[in-house]
Amino acid sequence: MKNCIVAQSGGPTAVINASVVGVVEENNRSSHYDNVYGGLNGIEGILNENIINLSKLQEEELNGLKYTPSSGLGSCRYKLKDYKIDDSEYKKLIEILKKHSIKTFFYIGGNDSMDTVDKLSEYAEIHSIDIQFIGIPKTIDNDLVGTDHTPGFGSAAKYVATTVLECYCDTNVYSFNGVFIMEIMGREAGWLAASAALGRIKGKSAADFIYLPEVPFSTEKFLEDVGNRLKVKNSVFVAVSEGIRDANGRFIAQMETGSHDKFGHVQLGGVCGNLKQLLIDNKITSKVKTLELGITQRAAMHNASKQDIDEAYRVGSDAVSYSTEGCSGVMVGITRESNKPYKMGTSLVKACEVANHIKSFPREWITPEGNNITMEGVEYITPLIMGAPDIETENGLPKYYIVNRDGIVK
Amino acid sequence: MKNCIVAQSGGPTAVINASVVGVVEENNRSSHYDNVYGGLNGIEGILNENIINLSKLQEEELNGLKYTPSSGLGSCRYKLKDYKIDDSEYKKLIEILKKHSIKTFFYIGGNDSMDTVDKLSEYAEIHSIDIQFIGIPKTIDNDLVGTDHTPGFGSAAKYVATTVLECYCDTNVYSFNGVFIMEIMGREAGWLAASAALGRIKGKSAADFIYLPEVPFSTEKFLEDVGNRLKVKNSVFVAVSEGIRDANGRFIAQMETGSHDKFGHVQLGGVCGNLKQLLIDNKITSKVKTLELGITQRAAMHNASKQDIDEAYRVGSDAVSYSTEGCSGVMVGITRESNKPYKMGTSLVKACEVANHIKSFPREWITPEGNNITMEGVEYITPLIMGAPDIETENGLPKYYIVNRDGIVK
Repeated sequence: MKNCIVAQSGGPTAVINASVVGVVEENNRSSHYDNVYGGLNGIEGILNENIINLSKLQEEELNGLKYTPSSGLGSCRYKLKDYKIDDSEYKKLIEILKKHSIKTFFYIGGNDSMDTVDKLSEYAEIHSIDIQFIGIPKTIDNDLVGTDHTPGFGSAAKYVATTVLECYCDTNVYSFNGVFIMEIMGREAGWLAASAALGRIKGKSAADFIYLPEVPFSTEKFLEDVGNRLKVKNSVFVAVSEGIRDANGRFIAQMETGSHDKFGHVQLGGVCGNLKQLLIDNKITSKVKTLELGITQRAAMHNASKQDIDEAYRVGSDAVSYSTEGCSGVMVGITRESNKPYKMGTSLVKACEVANHIKSFPREWITPEGNNITMEGVEYITPLIMGAPDIETENGLPKYYIVNRDGIVK
Repeated sequence: MKNCIVAQSGGPTAVINASVVGVVEENNRSSHYDNVYGGLNGIEGILNENIINLSKLQEEELNGLKYTPSSGLGSCRYKLKDYKIDDSEYKKLIEILKKHSIKTFFYIGGNDSMDTVDKLSEYAEIHSIDIQFIGIPKTIDNDLVGTDHTPGFGSAAKYVATTVLECYCDTNVYSFNGVFIMEIMGREAGWLAASAALGRIKGKSAADFIYLPEVPFSTEKFLEDVGNRLKVKNSVFVAVSEGIRDANGRFIAQMETGSHDKFGHVQLGGVCGNLKQLLIDNKITSKVKTLELGITQRAAMHNASKQDIDEAYRVGSDAVSYSTEGCSGVMVGITRESNKPYKMGTSLVKACEVANHIKSFPREWITPEGNNITMEGVEYITPLIMGAPDIETENGLPKYYIVNRDGIVK
């Protein structure tokens, strides 16, 4: 008996289940493993032996799961301790994996998960344990190194750009509309906020200004940008990353705007709220609307990119193929073979090179003024948002597949 | 020369432009009017003679406009004074309409716009002015009387229900997820928040609780609802209308949670923020996520309902047909001829019967406990969200058509 297990970790994306289905279906084709198990709630659940058998899923169920957003197997934010300090969880995990005859552990996640893959593979090697640990990338933030881009980003970028276009139409209707501020996810890197630039009206970015964490945020420049634009336009559209920071590295989201709760604690207004307050306090305009996209941007399968789904599936299925060669402590990265026409492939990268690193949005793709994105940046992202999935519907809504988490393998 | 004019008023919807296109294309077919003019920014713009000629739009432009969200001609929130007190604007408006040989004025809007239609038609009748005023309904709120439902509601309901399903998947991923609160538009009536109940998982409402303005909101009951549910589920999903009020009619959005700004003014947390604070202050859980859907729910053409677009078009085209019979001071209402299979028609209703009234969500479609929606309510809304529009795309995104507002008719 030779099995493998796949689990999901960290924040969800719209397409993270497509990677699970890629693993299962590739194994259905190759029969390399007797069973593909699914670990519930990532490594946290596996440590509690919450394991189900995904090889029992029917074709229809797999197809449903492929087009269902968010982590169908559940997720966790669990970081293993350094095994040199405390290896009790490593021992427990290996014991559970051995009990279930698991030869390969596929972990779908971001850079914290790649840290887990790295530590576990290192531990296994040192102790001559014949279990492989392979990472499969995902994050809407697109900030992983070792891969051209990450599955999950394309769909989130498409949702952001679509919403920019639709909000542009909505924020232009009155004779004076003031300022609209859209807050986009991305605490460390500005890739997703940059994708706002894909929303274009007559060839120009619908967003007047896009602010990313890669450029230190100056409140003076912001007030000047918006104030000047309001002199020539009756509406100003601002897209902003939640991760913008001032020159001292302090998050704008945590800037004190002077509000206190009933215990006297400073109230944090968030990026949108704080920028709104800045515009009002400095008398730029009192007409400011805000929108925090929130979790919709990572969950909107109904508007996902087909290219992204295909690539999420591909890194899952290729992970199974690569695993037959015996590799461990690696992540399946995406390579961009050409841009026009767009062509991608995959390759292996060491998990330790991915773990705990951040890939920033390139400064040369930000305009010299630091407040919008160049066409090179737009052209890099565009191929990743192409195509629409053919999602089954029921009563006018997408029919999503909820994994039965009860069938625990004993 | 005999022309007509169409204008848009109030808050935008995803399908309000389809009504404009319905007017223009019906007239292209019937040639009842020599030209269909468009008033920019509603009555406010017409008073400034901001008028363009929509009959010059090509088929391709009309098709683009039909599938573009939000008020393509611009909008306003302008209420005419009572002509018995001051008729100066009436005189000015009639003068402008006469100058452009306008025989019929079509006004697309909600109950304020129907008030305008009513006042203008009354004024015209008293002064023997041969101009007809006809209302075309729109509002995502679905709170107009005299019509089974309003164009704009179906698409907004579809967006809300889709987002409920996707957020349900996202808020279920960890071993403990706490409470998720989604705030939905609808200041006066709960129709749109009720449509959250269309998001169903295995036949049950994905939202554990749905609170509407039609039921006085009790903070005690809310804390009890959520607290009890958290004892049996690791995540609780709350959908709430922005318009919920306590037994004294006070908006929960305006409840004081104890925050003050730097001048000592009370800070309003909004519905989401205030309910979150309640859960934390009462130690139900500190893990609370919120999402205010904001303008996306009325602008998301990419996820619009085909049925809704068709009906928005239909009330526009039928308005032209009805106008040939000489009616004035009326609105084109939608009639529901049957539910299974769904079949609709239109009829005329007096604008004065629509103006300044609100149609509430029926109490009998709210569960006895007052915290969710019955299947009757779900079945009423479902036919309105069916079908998807075939929107032209460009670089992976919807291709929206922006009306050129420069070609002012002299």
